[in-house]
Amino acid sequence: MNTVKIVVAGPRGKMGSEALRMIQKQDNYELVACVDKKNGGWKVKDIDGLPPFEARIYEDMDECLQEVEADVLIDLTAPEVGYKHTKSAFEHGVRPVVGTTGFTTDQLEELTDLSEQKGLGAVIAPNFAIGAVLMMQFSKMAAKYFPNVEIIERHHDQKLDAPSGTAVKTAELIQQVREEQSQGHPNEKETIPGARGADFDGMRIHSVRLPGLVAHQEVVFGDLGQNLTIKHDSFHRESFMSGVKLAVDRVLELDVLVYGLENLME
Amino acid sequence: MNTVKIVVAGPRGKMGSEALRMIQKQDNYELVACVDKKNGGWKVKDIDGLPPFEARIYEDMDECLQEVEADVLIDLTAPEVGYKHTKSAFEHGVRPVVGTTGFTTDQLEELTDLSEQKGLGAVIAPNFAIGAVLMMQFSKMAAKYFPNVEIIERHHDQKLDAPSGTAVKTAELIQQVREEQSQGHPNEKETIPGARGADFDGMRIHSVRLPGLVAHQEVVFGDLGQNLTIKHDSFHRESFMSGVKLAVDRVLELDVLVYGLENLME
Amino acid sequence: MNTVKIVVAGPRGKMGSEALRMIQKQDNYELVACVDKKNGGWKVKDIDGLPPFEARIYEDMDECLQEVEADVLIDLTAPEVGYKHTKSAFEHGVRPVVGTTGFTTDQLEELTDLSEQKGLGAVIAPNFAIGAVLMMQFSKMAAKYFPNVEIIERHHDQKLDAPSGTAVKTAELIQQVREEQSQGHPNEKETIPGARGADFDGMRIHSVRLPGLVAHQEVVFGDLGQNLTIKHDSFHRESFMSGVKLAVDRVLELDVLVYGLENLME
Amino acid sequence: MNTVKIVVAGPRGKMGSEALRMIQKQDNYELVACVDKKNGGWKVKDIDGLPPFEARIYEDMDECLQEVEADVLIDLTAPEVGYKHTKSAFEHGVRPVVGTTGFTTDQLEELTDLSEQKGLGAVIAPNFAIGAVLMMQFSKMAAKYFPNVEIIERHHDQKLDAPSGTAVKTAELIQQVREEQSQGHPNEKETIPGARGADFDGMRIHSVRLPGLVAHQEVVFGDLGQNLTIKHDSFHRESFMSGVKLAVDRVLELDVLVYGLENLME
Repeated sequence: MNTVKIVVAGPRGKMGSEALRMIQKQDNYELVACVDKKNGGWKVKDIDGLPPFEARIYEDMDECLQEVEADVLIDLTAPEVGYKHTKSAFEHGVRPVVGTTGFTTDQLEELTDLSEQKGLGAVIAPNFAIGAVLMMQFSKMAAKYFPNVEIIERHHDQKLDAPSGTAVKTAELIQQVREEQSQGHPNEKETIPGARGADFDGMRIHSVRLPGLVAHQEVVFGDLGQNLTIKHDSFHRESFMSGVKLAVDRVLELDVLVYGLENLME
Repeated sequence: MNTVKIVVAGPRGKMGSEALRMIQKQDNYELVACVDKKNGGWKVKDIDGLPPFEARIYEDMDECLQEVEADVLIDLTAPEVGYKHTKSAFEHGVRPVVGTTGFTTDQLEELTDLSEQKGLGAVIAPNFAIGAVLMMQFSKMAAKYFPNVEIIERHHDQKLDAPSGTAVKTAELIQQVREEQSQGHPNEKETIPGARGADFDGMRIHSVRLPGLVAHQEVVFGDLGQNLTIKHDSFHRESFMSGVKLAVDRVLELDVLVYGLENLME
Repeated sequence: MNTVKIVVAGPRGKMGSEALRMIQKQDNYELVACVDKKNGGWKVKDIDGLPPFEARIYEDMDECLQEVEADVLIDLTAPEVGYKHTKSAFEHGVRPVVGTTGFTTDQLEELTDLSEQKGLGAVIAPNFAIGAVLMMQFSKMAAKYFPNVEIIERHHDQKLDAPSGTAVKTAELIQQVREEQSQGHPNEKETIPGARGADFDGMRIHSVRLPGLVAHQEVVFGDLGQNLTIKHDSFHRESFMSGVKLAVDRVLELDVLVYGLENLME
Repeated sequence: MNTVKIVVAGPRGKMGSEALRMIQKQDNYELVACVDKKNGGWKVKDIDGLPPFEARIYEDMDECLQEVEADVLIDLTAPEVGYKHTKSAFEHGVRPVVGTTGFTTDQLEELTDLSEQKGLGAVIAPNFAIGAVLMMQFSKMAAKYFPNVEIIERHHDQKLDAPSGTAVKTAELIQQVREEQSQGHPNEKETIPGARGADFDGMRIHSVRLPGLVAHQEVVFGDLGQNLTIKHDSFHRESFMSGVKLAVDRVLELDVLVYGLENLME
């Protein structure tokens, strides 16, 4: 197994620092540099809270990729910066693995073209939690047979928006395949408004917010005499790291850009 | 163990027929008669769908209790009729066990007085499912320590009202003990209305309706780093029968009227 | 939508009588006859506990299929009889839908050949609960990414064998795809024997038996910081009927024998 | 609300450092000193990983309590040291709150006597997670009515012993109240050994071990047609801090030693 040389952009972020810890645990991964908006010239080990890597920190992606030889860029920054970093990676023959929900359609098209021109694989994913991606895929598959479905998502009580992005995304995927469906009794009545949850194309979504919770979702399908439930619990943000690792391993064999972790999973 | 002589009123109803099956299984219970609004003069075993009891059916409670010697009346009829039956039972020295949510405060007071005058125990309960009663009691106890609570109740999709009566009852019990509480983030926002459920004094109640479900409720308490969940699943209406049996056994030792199964359970 | 003419074999069994009720609810299904080991010459409506169909009961499958015109045979009898019925159906140009776990490999091969010769579709399925079939399929898919898995199955306390057949079947499917895996801590110790459940190729299976339960299974996958759970609840045996209906609808378009409901579900 | 002056022993341990963070969040709590086996003379804020308190660190409890005025000692050290610290606290008129499972019966008796002589309240608790304590109390209460019970506990896969201490403690509490009970079908058979879990006086305990999990337990009671489930999820060790805070608040009003958090909760 050859060593995979990796650059991480955004090493001090929550996701970035988890990525460093994931690299630490893999025998065949090597951190060759980090790109950060500050701390240029320092080593990773000098930065408070980061693992004891010798790798150098750069403030400019182009400079970094000129100086160090890398196979993969793991970019866990923000959309604006991530877009520039991804282009820079392609120019230096480095395969990008990017975690973002923020790229525009135009940007995605441009990056897909670039990937093709260079013959360099790339992975761009809005969600690296394999469990959440599987939950959404399975839900889409189950909805073909069980059109009656409700989603219950549970998060800590510091979350501002309800329903969660994952719940809405799940409902959108289900919407693509299920036959039109009016759920519940036609004459059902809410004696307290909101009891039956948010109505998304007939599906009901319920958002629980309590201290102690992290990020949890269950998708419940009902049919005569039976229920099928698909549930994902995210207890800690290290849950994203199996997906980042999967993307790094697969991107080395790709020569196209793949959007969404689900498209890496056959 | 002496034999307990029992009269059942409402034998053809869903609850009544379950009560007959419960009596069938108890070695020390004896069905001595039924009171029904029709079928007077027939035996129970002659009625389609009822167990093969020899006991006779009466259409009038007074007539029944004059002719047969009974210890306990199990009344599973409607409030109007149940009220008359209960009074009749007291007059004939029979202890009533009544399942109803419909008695007025005046009626309850009158029956309580009668019970006391006669020195005859009685049990009147809106809910005979011991599990549901315990769920409500435990929820009330937990709320003293964990004021952040949400209720998720799930029923078959033929149910008309949301939230369920049990969910509202649970919330009312919690309200009695918990300190005033504003739940969720002060700036939380529903991007689809209803996502955060019904608001009952700050608690959120979520009503799921799907085919296949029967009657289920979970009460979830959140605190820093932990959750406590109390959940009741009613899979079949025979779930009420343990509570009816408990009431029959306890009413024999009582010389007062007890309202609510929880007050029989120390 | 053309009417589908259906013969049901085994109408008085638990599954058979559910099949009749399912046919009753479908506008485009017509029950044209039943085959039973007794009651020949009677109508279905004459038999205690069966729905009020006019269709006639036969005691011999060949005689039945000579006299009535049918599209599909739903066979819910026992393996011996079911095998003969299936062959008879092929000979009369009727497509069989058979619920059984009991056919031998030889029998399945012979029936597959017959199906091909006649160009007549057939469905033979050990399990018609779509939800259970999906649970097993999803579990197999998830195990590729999450090799750490435990199965908790829960049944009523009258069940004799532990673990359940479905739990073992699920474990076998997972075994086909997951990388070899030693689960739990290498030095873990049971202070009471059996605590860690049944060991199936490293996976642990836990069998809960309690009154009130029907048939439930959850398959739990663990990964760093996350869990993925796939859960099936069977509350009532009518849960099998969506699968029988799916098989009836699909068998009309098939010209081969399909074994296992999962192979009807793309 | 008067300020409560607190000494914490064991500030660098997992529990101790959480206790410091809890004190930080309470307006009416003041950390007046820490007792540690090293770092004497430093301030808390000088120690890596601890919150920025000005309070001084002592290596000797007697010296500490002579020099600083305190109301409460929170001791989260080991049994040997904790026992000495508790005696020292009584001598200096300070109320101890001690988290330990390790005191002997003799030690507990001696400390109870000391508490009485001095008229000083004290709380000694093996478990400060209020949710876990309530789960155990509710389980004991439910078992009176529902003698059929199984326990499923789930922990991370680094845990060595199965079943967990909390599961065994729960089973012991249930054992005190439930009528003798043989669970499951008399003829049930394990086709793979261990499927039915650990047998504790007829109750079955199942231990799930998977990566991603923290510490979870559900106690499931089965009865005809219904299930009652009491479930505790500990997502993070800060779950203990509500219990420590409860003990600090109550110990100020006590003039006896109370053992076990459940005895503080009416």
